[in-house]
Amino acid sequence: MHRTHTCGELRLDNAGQEVTLSGWVQRIRDKGGLIWIDLRDRYGITQLLIEEGRTNDDVVKASRGLGREFVIKVKGNVIERSSKNPNIPTGEIEIDLSSIEILNSSKTPPFTLEDNTDGGDELRMKYRYLDLRRQPLRRNLELRNRLSIETRKYLDNEKFFEIETPYLIKSTPEGARDFVVPSRMNEGQFYALPQSPQTFKQLLMVAGYDRYYQLVKCFRDEDLRADRQPEFTQIDCEMAFVEQDDILNTFEGLVRYLFKTVKNIDIPKLPIMEYADAMKYYGSDKPDIRFGMKFVELNDVAQNKGFAIFDSAELVVGINAEGCANYSRKQLDKLTDFVRKPQIGAKGMVYVKYLSDEQSANDDGSFKSSVDKFYSQEDLKTWAEKFDSKPGDLMLILSGDKNTVRKQLNELRLEMGNQLDLRKTDVFAPLWVVDFPLLEWDEDTKRFHAMHHPFTSPKADDINLLDEKPAEVRANAYDLVINGVEIGGGSIRIHDRDLQKLMFKHLGFTDEEAQEQFGFLMNAFEYGAPPHGGIALGFDRLVALFGGSDSIRDYIAFPKNNSGRDVMIDSPSEISDAQLDELMLNIKK
Amino acid sequence: MHRTHTCGELRLDNAGQEVTLSGWVQRIRDKGGLIWIDLRDRYGITQLLIEEGRTNDDVVKASRGLGREFVIKVKGNVIERSSKNPNIPTGEIEIDLSSIEILNSSKTPPFTLEDNTDGGDELRMKYRYLDLRRQPLRRNLELRNRLSIETRKYLDNEKFFEIETPYLIKSTPEGARDFVVPSRMNEGQFYALPQSPQTFKQLLMVAGYDRYYQLVKCFRDEDLRADRQPEFTQIDCEMAFVEQDDILNTFEGLVRYLFKTVKNIDIPKLPIMEYADAMKYYGSDKPDIRFGMKFVELNDVAQNKGFAIFDSAELVVGINAEGCANYSRKQLDKLTDFVRKPQIGAKGMVYVKYLSDEQSANDDGSFKSSVDKFYSQEDLKTWAEKFDSKPGDLMLILSGDKNTVRKQLNELRLEMGNQLDLRKTDVFAPLWVVDFPLLEWDEDTKRFHAMHHPFTSPKADDINLLDEKPAEVRANAYDLVINGVEIGGGSIRIHDRDLQKLMFKHLGFTDEEAQEQFGFLMNAFEYGAPPHGGIALGFDRLVALFGGSDSIRDYIAFPKNNSGRDVMIDSPSEISDAQLDELMLNIKK
Repeated sequence: MHRTHTCGELRLDNAGQEVTLSGWVQRIRDKGGLIWIDLRDRYGITQLLIEEGRTNDDVVKASRGLGREFVIKVKGNVIERSSKNPNIPTGEIEIDLSSIEILNSSKTPPFTLEDNTDGGDELRMKYRYLDLRRQPLRRNLELRNRLSIETRKYLDNEKFFEIETPYLIKSTPEGARDFVVPSRMNEGQFYALPQSPQTFKQLLMVAGYDRYYQLVKCFRDEDLRADRQPEFTQIDCEMAFVEQDDILNTFEGLVRYLFKTVKNIDIPKLPIMEYADAMKYYGSDKPDIRFGMKFVELNDVAQNKGFAIFDSAELVVGINAEGCANYSRKQLDKLTDFVRKPQIGAKGMVYVKYLSDEQSANDDGSFKSSVDKFYSQEDLKTWAEKFDSKPGDLMLILSGDKNTVRKQLNELRLEMGNQLDLRKTDVFAPLWVVDFPLLEWDEDTKRFHAMHHPFTSPKADDINLLDEKPAEVRANAYDLVINGVEIGGGSIRIHDRDLQKLMFKHLGFTDEEAQEQFGFLMNAFEYGAPPHGGIALGFDRLVALFGGSDSIRDYIAFPKNNSGRDVMIDSPSEISDAQLDELMLNIKK
Repeated sequence: MHRTHTCGELRLDNAGQEVTLSGWVQRIRDKGGLIWIDLRDRYGITQLLIEEGRTNDDVVKASRGLGREFVIKVKGNVIERSSKNPNIPTGEIEIDLSSIEILNSSKTPPFTLEDNTDGGDELRMKYRYLDLRRQPLRRNLELRNRLSIETRKYLDNEKFFEIETPYLIKSTPEGARDFVVPSRMNEGQFYALPQSPQTFKQLLMVAGYDRYYQLVKCFRDEDLRADRQPEFTQIDCEMAFVEQDDILNTFEGLVRYLFKTVKNIDIPKLPIMEYADAMKYYGSDKPDIRFGMKFVELNDVAQNKGFAIFDSAELVVGINAEGCANYSRKQLDKLTDFVRKPQIGAKGMVYVKYLSDEQSANDDGSFKSSVDKFYSQEDLKTWAEKFDSKPGDLMLILSGDKNTVRKQLNELRLEMGNQLDLRKTDVFAPLWVVDFPLLEWDEDTKRFHAMHHPFTSPKADDINLLDEKPAEVRANAYDLVINGVEIGGGSIRIHDRDLQKLMFKHLGFTDEEAQEQFGFLMNAFEYGAPPHGGIALGFDRLVALFGGSDSIRDYIAFPKNNSGRDVMIDSPSEISDAQLDELMLNIKK
C-alpha cells in the first residue's frame, strides 16, 4: 500500500507518528524558506510542510519540481500546526516531510478543478475524469452510493429479493423507441435493451417470488432533453398479493426512510391527491406542493359581465400571489411576456391587485386590475373572496380551453413560486397522485394509448365504461411526486388473461399482434397468476433531488451529451466491415 | 393486502387467531369427509383443513373445484394439528377454513413443479416462470440475493463506492467480440455493450475515487458453452495506491467473509501459487486443491531405459492415486480410453501398481506395470520414491510435449479426483494463482495477445525482457481459483502513458490505432494517474459454486439457451422495416 493513512484521517492524536501519505497536489504555497503543499485524496486534504535548511535538501528540491495534480507519495512526521485551520478535520496538524516520491506527473488541467470551475460543458465532458475530481461531483456520486445502499437496506428488511432480469430482451412497438442489438447467432434478428424490466418482474410474481426489486439500467432511444439520458437507472419493484394501499405504504416508507437516514429530515405521512384534483388545483399531474397558490376557478363570477375573452373561455382560472400587490407595471409586463412565450402560449394575462390599506387610501378603491373597464370594485371583491385574497395580494388570471389554460397557469404558478422563493431546494414535499386515467388519446395515431402501460389494471368500478367512455376509465395507477418532479410511478397490474386481452384490444392490437408480442405473459396468466402491482422510481432524478439539483447529469459518473454521445471515449463510432459482415448488416447510404 | 400472514410464519402460538392467507395450491388430499390443502408461497407451506358437515358448505364445494397451482385466498382459524409434521416450520398447526376465494385458476403445468421435475431443459426454459416456482431454483435465487447483499456490505465497510459505469460504450477490436447497438441519432455509428467496465474503472481511479466496485452486467458475443451466457454479472472492483498484496488481502477478505456469513464456513488464509508452479504441479492455471495428487516429473528416472515413447518425450509426468493398486484391467482400460478421448488426445497411459503386501506375496515383486518389459522392479522403485507412493497405490503416467501432456494429465487427475470422491461440493479450497505471463502467442493471428488485458502491468524486473523474450515476461496479474474454477482475476494496471504505449506496440497496435481506441485512457494518464489495480469476480459462477453446482444457468432468473435465445419471450426476433429504416440499416440476404 502506498500509504499508511488517507489524507482525511490524521488528527492531533497522531502527532509524533511517522506516516506515509499518497495523493494529488492540490495547492503549493512557496514562501521562500517555507513551502506548504495541500495533498488531496477522496478522504480529505492534509497539509505538508517543507522548511528550507531544516528539511532534507532532496525533498526541498523535489517539492520545487511539483505542479498541481501531480501524484506524490510522501513520508514525514505528524506535527501540530502553529496556525490551525478549523475548516477542515485535519486542520490541527501538518506533516513535516522527510521524503517525496513522484508517482506520476500531470499536465496543467484544461480547466480549474475547483468547486466553481471555469470549464464549459463540452470540455468538462471530454475530460470527465478530471471534472470528477471536483468536490461537488465527488459528493454527488458519494450521495448516489449512499442512497443505493440505503435503498437496498430498506427493501432487504422488507423481504424484497433483488433479482437480475435480462438486458438482451425482445423489441416491442408499444411505448418508447427501443435500442436494438443485432444477433450474430440468429441472422437478421435483434435483441432489444429493456425500457424497463416490466414483463419480467410480473413473471417473477407469477413465479411466486412475492417481493422483487432491482436497481437496474433501462434504455430509451428518445430525443434527449436536459433531464433525460439514453440510459438511466430505476429502482424497480413489484409485490404480489397487494392492493394499491400496500404499495403506497411500502414505498412511502422507503421515501421517509431515505430522507431520515441520508438527510436527517422527518417527512410526515404523504398526502394522496387524485389526478383530477391535481389537474384542477395545480394544472399538473406532478404538482409542486412546497407552496400553496392553488388554482381558483372564476367562471361563475367572471363570465357574463361583458368581457368577451372570459365569456368565450371554457375555463377562467387564477392564482393568488401573496404580498405581490406592489408589483410594478414592468414586473407585470414581464409576467405577461412569460405566459405569452411560445412554449407556454397564453394570449394574455389578467391581473387584479388587492391594494393594501395604504395603497388604496391613495386610490379610488381596494382593487386595481387590467380589466377595470369590465368589472366593478364589487365584482372584483367577489373574486378576491374566492381567492381568499388579502389586501396586498395579487391575483393572476388566465382563460381559455380547460386543458390548455391549466397547463399555462401551472407554468405561471411555478414561476411565481420561483419569484417568491417558495421552491427551496432543501425543503421536500412528497405526495402521491392517484387515480390516473387508464387511456389517453393520441392525435398522431388516432387511437388510445395506455397512459401508464398496457399492463395497468382499470378500476373495477370503471371497467363497464371501457366501450362507451374509454377516456373516463380510471386506472389503479399512482405516481410519487416530490417538489414538482415525477420521481416514480406504478400500478396494480392486470393478472387475468381475459382482461389483459380486452386491454390489448382497446389499445388497437389484433389478437395475433397481442399474442406475438406478449403471448408469454398472457400464457403465464393461465398458470395461477397472483394479484400484483409495483412501482419504478427514477434513481437518477431521486439522487439529483436529494442533492438539491434538477440536472441528473451531475449525478451520473459518465453521462452522454444531448446527441447521445460520450465525448470522452468518442462513442458511438463506426465499426469495422468485418463486424458488419458477421452481423449480416449493411449501412444504408 | 390479500393476507394477514405468509404461508411460512404461523406457529402453535398463533392458535386461536383468525387469519387470511394467500398462495398457490400445492397439493390436495380429499379423504371423503376430510380435505387437506397444502397452500404454498415463497415463505413456506401451510396446511388448510376442510371438514364436510362442519365446515361451511360453500367452502367444501369451492375446495372441490380447486386444482394444483390455483391461486386462492382463504380465511380461517389457526388450530393445533392432531398429526404434526416435524419437517416444516408450520407443521404444528393447520387452518380450519371459513372461506375460500379463487384469485386465479391454473391449467395443469406442462411439467411437475417438484424438486425433481420431469420437464426437459427446453420445456422448462419456455415456461421459466413455472420452473422458477420449484424450490431448488427459488433457493438458488435467494442465495444469489444473499450473496449480493453481503458482497455490498463487505465492500461498503471497506469504503468502496459503488459507481455505475455506462452500458452504451465504444466497440474495440481487442478481446472478445462485442455486442453492438446501432445509434439512430448518429447515423452509421454504433455503441458497444461493455465486456467489462475496465477502462471506466481505471478512469475512476484517475479521478480520485480511490475504491470502486460495481455488481454489473457484462456482455460477450461468443459462441456459448454450458457455463457461458451472452450476458453475465461481475463483481467489478478497482483500488488506487495499492500493490498486489493489498488487492489479494482485500478480496480474500471478501471471500472469507462470504463463506463465513452465508455458509458458516471458516476459510483459512489463502495459499498463493505461482502460475509456473500451477502448471508444473497441476497442469492447469486453475488447480483444484481440494485434493493432492500433485504431478511428479519422471524424466530423470524414466528416460534412457529403452522405452522409446518416454525417451522421445519432452516430459514424462504422472500422478499417484492412493489405494488404487486394486484397479482391475477393465478399470485401467477405461482410464486409458478416457485419456485417449479426442478432447484430451493422449496416445496412451502407463500405469504402475505398487502392490500391497498381500498382493505382492502372490506376485513376482512389489510393482506391476504396463511397462514391465522396459523397467526393472528396481527402476519402478525409484519412481515410487519420487511419487512418495505406498503399497496399495497406483501411479498413472503420461508423456509428450510439455504443455500438451500437462493438460492431459490435469484431466486425468480431475477424473481420478472424481472417482475417489475427492471433489466434494461442500468442501471449498480457494487459492490465488499469481505471476501469470504477460503475453501469450496466438497461432491464428501470429502475434502476441495480452493474457489478461492490455492494461495489465509487467513485473518491473521483467520489463527488459519485453523485446527479446516477450513470452517470459511475467505480469502483476492474479486469479482467484476455488475448487478448480476461475472465480476471478485481476492485475495491477499500467498507470504510465509511455509504458501503456509500449504495451500497445508489443500487442501489434500502431500508434494511430492505440490512440483511436484508447486515446482517452492514455490522455488521462497525463493528468496525474495514481498507481492502481483491481479484480473482477464472476458472480454467476461464485453463486453456483456456493450452491454446490457448476451450472450457472440454474442461478440466473432468465438465462438464454446455447443459441443465445430466450425461448420464453422468443428473443431475438425480427424487427420492423420502420425500425431498420430509422437506424439506416439493411439486412444482407
